[in-house]
Amino acid sequence: MKRILTGDRPTGKLHIGHYVGSLQTRVALQNDYETFILIADVQALTTHFERPELINESIYNVAMDNIAAGLDPEKVTFIQQSMVPAIAELTIFYSMLTTVNHLLINPTIKSESRNYGFGENDGDFSYDFSKLTYGFLGYPVSQTADITFCNADLVPVGEDQVPHLEFSRKLVRKFNELYGTSITVPDYKLSQVPRLAGLDGNSKMGKSLGNALYLSDTPEEVWNKVRNAKTDTNRISVKTPGNPDVCAVYHYHKAFNAGEVENVCSMCKNAQMGCVACKKLLNEKLNALLDPMRERRSKYEANPSLIKEIVAEGTKKANEIGNENIRQIKEKMHVTM
Amino acid sequence: MKRILTGDRPTGKLHIGHYVGSLQTRVALQNDYETFILIADVQALTTHFERPELINESIYNVAMDNIAAGLDPEKVTFIQQSMVPAIAELTIFYSMLTTVNHLLINPTIKSESRNYGFGENDGDFSYDFSKLTYGFLGYPVSQTADITFCNADLVPVGEDQVPHLEFSRKLVRKFNELYGTSITVPDYKLSQVPRLAGLDGNSKMGKSLGNALYLSDTPEEVWNKVRNAKTDTNRISVKTPGNPDVCAVYHYHKAFNAGEVENVCSMCKNAQMGCVACKKLLNEKLNALLDPMRERRSKYEANPSLIKEIVAEGTKKANEIGNENIRQIKEKMHVTM
Ligand code: SF4
Ligand code: SF4
Repeated sequence: MKRILTGDRPTGKLHIGHYVGSLQTRVALQNDYETFILIADVQALTTHFERPELINESIYNVAMDNIAAGLDPEKVTFIQQSMVPAIAELTIFYSMLTTVNHLLINPTIKSESRNYGFGENDGDFSYDFSKLTYGFLGYPVSQTADITFCNADLVPVGEDQVPHLEFSRKLVRKFNELYGTSITVPDYKLSQVPRLAGLDGNSKMGKSLGNALYLSDTPEEVWNKVRNAKTDTNRISVKTPGNPDVCAVYHYHKAFNAGEVENVCSMCKNAQMGCVACKKLLNEKLNALLDPMRERRSKYEANPSLIKEIVAEGTKKANEIGNENIRQIKEKMHVTM
Repeated sequence: MKRILTGDRPTGKLHIGHYVGSLQTRVALQNDYETFILIADVQALTTHFERPELINESIYNVAMDNIAAGLDPEKVTFIQQSMVPAIAELTIFYSMLTTVNHLLINPTIKSESRNYGFGENDGDFSYDFSKLTYGFLGYPVSQTADITFCNADLVPVGEDQVPHLEFSRKLVRKFNELYGTSITVPDYKLSQVPRLAGLDGNSKMGKSLGNALYLSDTPEEVWNKVRNAKTDTNRISVKTPGNPDVCAVYHYHKAFNAGEVENVCSMCKNAQMGCVACKKLLNEKLNALLDPMRERRSKYEANPSLIKEIVAEGTKKANEIGNENIRQIKEKMHVTM
């Protein structure tokens, strides 16, 4: 079975956007691939180094959310990045073969630097080196180590991650060529990652935007968020025909109620259904998705140390693999005692 | 006893310039400080990543040269950097708190980048990011990890290393402040590092210049190098008065024959001594320095595995210290399982 590596930055609970964007793919793939989920707490430090306690809390939330979403802890290996020194060692080795330019021109580093304010935003983006940290700049290098410390074969990615994977593939090839190592050149599986907008109409969903629908939300919380969702503001009464295209609720029907979405669309346009009814329908569908997650979660919520054990066990396995691989890599590099 | 950390990049055998520049200070300090000698094979990779086998061979030469020079392996801890994952882990953490600018403005990084051709040399130096590697740029970060993984109190440095130590001190203070860690802020002991010129008259000595007088040179090799040393080329015969200031041999008398140097000077100026006699005198003094080294070395040359054991044992001790320190650091950072 080929090995897939994917993961999350533990900077908060996972929301339904994460589910649509990646968790559901993971769940679908877990039977066909040996699945490693890297909980990237060191990487999270690159942007959250001032809030490490938030990261630490989030590790268990993230593991829990993955399991709740349907990943089978018996099959899947959960890894806490910070506890795998082989990743740090490999990062250092890779950093020798990477020019600063290779990193600066990476479009994802550029756009992320823009997001985090590490540069001038007017017109063409230019880096501000007095803000850009060395650690942040090295993200593609350390991500290459994340993927390859265990010789992962495949990484599922969205469009925006492709430059990182192309970078990794080039770097690993160069490294193998120079040192005669046989580190697996990771392939990527491009998936259409539907970007789920917020129920408030914001095109993005996130904790900082205050519009996230969490996988761990209670039915009350879900209803509260759905009830307050942004609909067609021109639809002033049930009798006014609506325009679903400008309605966040409609977009959620598209994502979570595919079977009825055409019906919803025509009923809205023809003023055959009110917004409250429409929201209730969506609410049902969301809970139909979340209820099995709540059920799976309940076992672990009653006994949080189970999650700790799952992560500890996976990390132990990762260390065995990583230590053996780094030993072999070092041997080929003549870095031996 | 305070802990001192110093070391060498294993890129060849050590020469007499290393002895004058640093080994002799180490030997003098070993009774007053717990001495850690870091054999920086990972750091050597930043500039020699294409020749790792050279680095590996050099580890034992470097350890041997240090012991031959008078460091007591019973007292001193020899550490192979690549075998201490805590250093790599700490490097990654430090890299989050370092801006790219902090590294680019470092005068030593600048001048070293100039030496290695990582930029434009005409007039004001400017970096060429398509040549500068990410690993090379991060040298001050990883050096900070080298020094602090074991909470070293003191680092003996030459003038050119002061910016690195200042960088380290600032970084460690910032780190401690942010995370409440109590990593020792390393102090530095500035020593006048007399730069020993080559016997060929070149102002620098080095393997690549082909003018190095190695600590491991045989008496024949020493005499060969001294015999061919560059003297005052205007002194065509014994009867011509010489000008010691332009003579490499004279500069070596200053460094290795302090007791007689004034005498040598006046005899040369007054044509009372020929160059051959002058060289023989220097040769004697050099062998007087090297003979005890040869004696100490012979024990290990007869049994090279002794050196391996010394490095292995020191590295083991370093790992015990480093692993405990990184555990404590991670705990303070909330990077825990
Ligand atoms: S009926 Fe539904 S789709 Fe139409 S505006 Fe109301 S909530 Fe939106
Ligand atoms: S006598 Fe000695 S110092 Fe004078 S030129 Fe000859 S070698 Fe140099």
